Amino acid sequence: MKKQDKKPVKELESFGQKLVTDIEKGKNPTIEFSLRSLSNVVYDTKTKTLGLGEKQQQRAFFNVGHAKKFLQTLEIAKISKNLLDVGKHASLRDVFYMAKRTLPSSNINIVDDQVESDKSLEDLELITDCSREQLNINANKMGSVAGNVVIEDSGDSINWAKLGSGGWSIPSNVEDVEFKSVKAKYVIYMEKQAVWERLHEDKFWEKQNCIIVTSQGQTTRGIRRLLQRLNDEYDLPIYVLADFDPWGFYIYSVLKFGSINLAHMSGTMTLQNARFLGVTADDALNYDLKKHFIKFKDVDMTRLKQIADYEWFQKNKDWQRQFKLMKDFGAKLEIQALSSKGITFISEKYLPEKIKKQEFLD
Amino acid sequence: MKKQDKKPVKELESFGQKLVTDIEKGKNPTIEFSLRSLSNVVYDTKTKTLGLGEKQQQRAFFNVGHAKKFLQTLEIAKISKNLLDVGKHASLRDVFYMAKRTLPSSNINIVDDQVESDKSLEDLELITDCSREQLNINANKMGSVAGNVVIEDSGDSINWAKLGSGGWSIPSNVEDVEFKSVKAKYVIYMEKQAVWERLHEDKFWEKQNCIIVTSQGQTTRGIRRLLQRLNDEYDLPIYVLADFDPWGFYIYSVLKFGSINLAHMSGTMTLQNARFLGVTADDALNYDLKKHFIKFKDVDMTRLKQIADYEWFQKNKDWQRQFKLMKDFGAKLEIQALSSKGITFISEKYLPEKIKKQEFLD
Repeated sequence: MKKQDKKPVKELESFGQKLVTDIEKGKNPTIEFSLRSLSNVVYDTKTKTLGLGEKQQQRAFFNVGHAKKFLQTLEIAKISKNLLDVGKHASLRDVFYMAKRTLPSSNINIVDDQVESDKSLEDLELITDCSREQLNINANKMGSVAGNVVIEDSGDSINWAKLGSGGWSIPSNVEDVEFKSVKAKYVIYMEKQAVWERLHEDKFWEKQNCIIVTSQGQTTRGIRRLLQRLNDEYDLPIYVLADFDPWGFYIYSVLKFGSINLAHMSGTMTLQNARFLGVTADDALNYDLKKHFIKFKDVDMTRLKQIADYEWFQKNKDWQRQFKLMKDFGAKLEIQALSSKGITFISEKYLPEKIKKQEFLD
Repeated sequence: MKKQDKKPVKELESFGQKLVTDIEKGKNPTIEFSLRSLSNVVYDTKTKTLGLGEKQQQRAFFNVGHAKKFLQTLEIAKISKNLLDVGKHASLRDVFYMAKRTLPSSNINIVDDQVESDKSLEDLELITDCSREQLNINANKMGSVAGNVVIEDSGDSINWAKLGSGGWSIPSNVEDVEFKSVKAKYVIYMEKQAVWERLHEDKFWEKQNCIIVTSQGQTTRGIRRLLQRLNDEYDLPIYVLADFDPWGFYIYSVLKFGSINLAHMSGTMTLQNARFLGVTADDALNYDLKKHFIKFKDVDMTRLKQIADYEWFQKNKDWQRQFKLMKDFGAKLEIQALSSKGITFISEKYLPEKIKKQEFLD
């Protein structure tokens, strides 16, 4: 068994053992764990992340309202244990199909919908204090990375600096990745793959001694963990490069402060040291980019107001100033508007200047 | 200048030279190329692809209705020529911002919307007989690949067999990729990244001596070209693995026969030898998967009817049989339903059996 699989296996076994003990003692088998509902999601001003409060919930076998969920939780625990035993990983969808069976002499399925197996897995993350990745269940695979880093993964030694124009394709699960050598001063994370290709072609990571990461869409858990590990284990600052729009701000917000969905995993899924590198309202003014503004639609204004009201942004003057300027502009601005200044403007002037002057939002 | 850039540069220069000659002769500068409209999209029963017919269109400078588009086409040609000259690539969005300027002493922008620069670029593909990738303008980057293949790209030698759990991240543009060694009997292309991770973890490509490719979403042009090059240059069959649903069939249809949007590029963007590996109606019956059927919604039935009516499927008895069975089931089936048979069922039994028996749809 792999070293890193020992903890989840032990946790799953002691979870099972606890229920066996309940049965042997003639007690009602009961699972207890933190309540995962909006009423128990709290913003921790010390760690500056969204996490779960102190409310607990119980799930008992001999309880008509709990019995099915109890069974589902055990079924997912069984599937996870089997995966760990054979050293295989499964996707959320796989797990759903593996759990979906009709109970003998009944017309009741263990799960009818993936939402049920997903929820049980989230419960299991709380029960075992292991992420779904540690339980060998993977989320989505997305994204690419390049930089002066050598890793070992699945028996291969991989140099992120020697992977041509494509880069390394980030797996859904990076728990087993071993860093062998990390030569970089910081990490830039960007959602847009086109910006990543721009920086990669310009050898930005080589010239600036950094690592560039793109998600090609929403930030997957694999990418979140990769960024967090680089930050934790190598103390690398994480800079977020996104559009100047409410959605860009939201990407940053979730990455740094967490989200309601991830509240039960805030310890391993948030990046408390992340900083917002751009694009900002000041960039629009300093680099004469107002002519590339894209007018707000109603939905943008609504979204902006929601984000400006987030607890962690409310008392932050710098962010409130950005929100106010955006509201006054009534417009957003894309990173790619920088291309109007020349194709390599972003990698030769914009980013080096901002990073040198440490012009970040926190 | 790179060897492969010579053709596009020559084509762009002769395009410009033609217009200069028009001017010197006192003629109205005029561009002529195939008409790109639905009325000129035809299904070629010989090549079995959707392509453009013989209708031509003209675009003249001294024509109030043409002048702006004429200017836009020249602007995009200029941007492409500049990119080729400095050996850089840009995304479609970059090109839009590079073209977006206000004409002096006017309030007219060269382009106001990306649709305009995109359309001009498609025209330029026809005018120069070069793909946008050859013109150094990239579409989206997506997807991963693994297999016994060594390539050279941007000065790096990359072994697709030695990239851990992630694989090589496929760039948006694979025109400059050089194949150094290709040891494989076939290629499996799948949309779903989770299925790719399944096959990769099970070392399917190693055991079966093949290449596995996933797009993690829609099939990008980069992936299309990668598959086409592996098929053209190494005679590798391409097998498509998709869900048993109208959308899965559509993915296959576009890959093999082309689409209206790609009609002007059918030569380099279609895979006439692609075959559909699964999931089929027969799989649902043979492997006892009917219990995992997902009931059709109205939109599924509508989509199925549209696809069944495609000219290239109309006279294909095997496909019509699939469409009929799907209609009778009134349901679709996901690849991942195979996981209900065990996590490695797909890689140890389903795929090896189907490929051995050559159970494909054409």
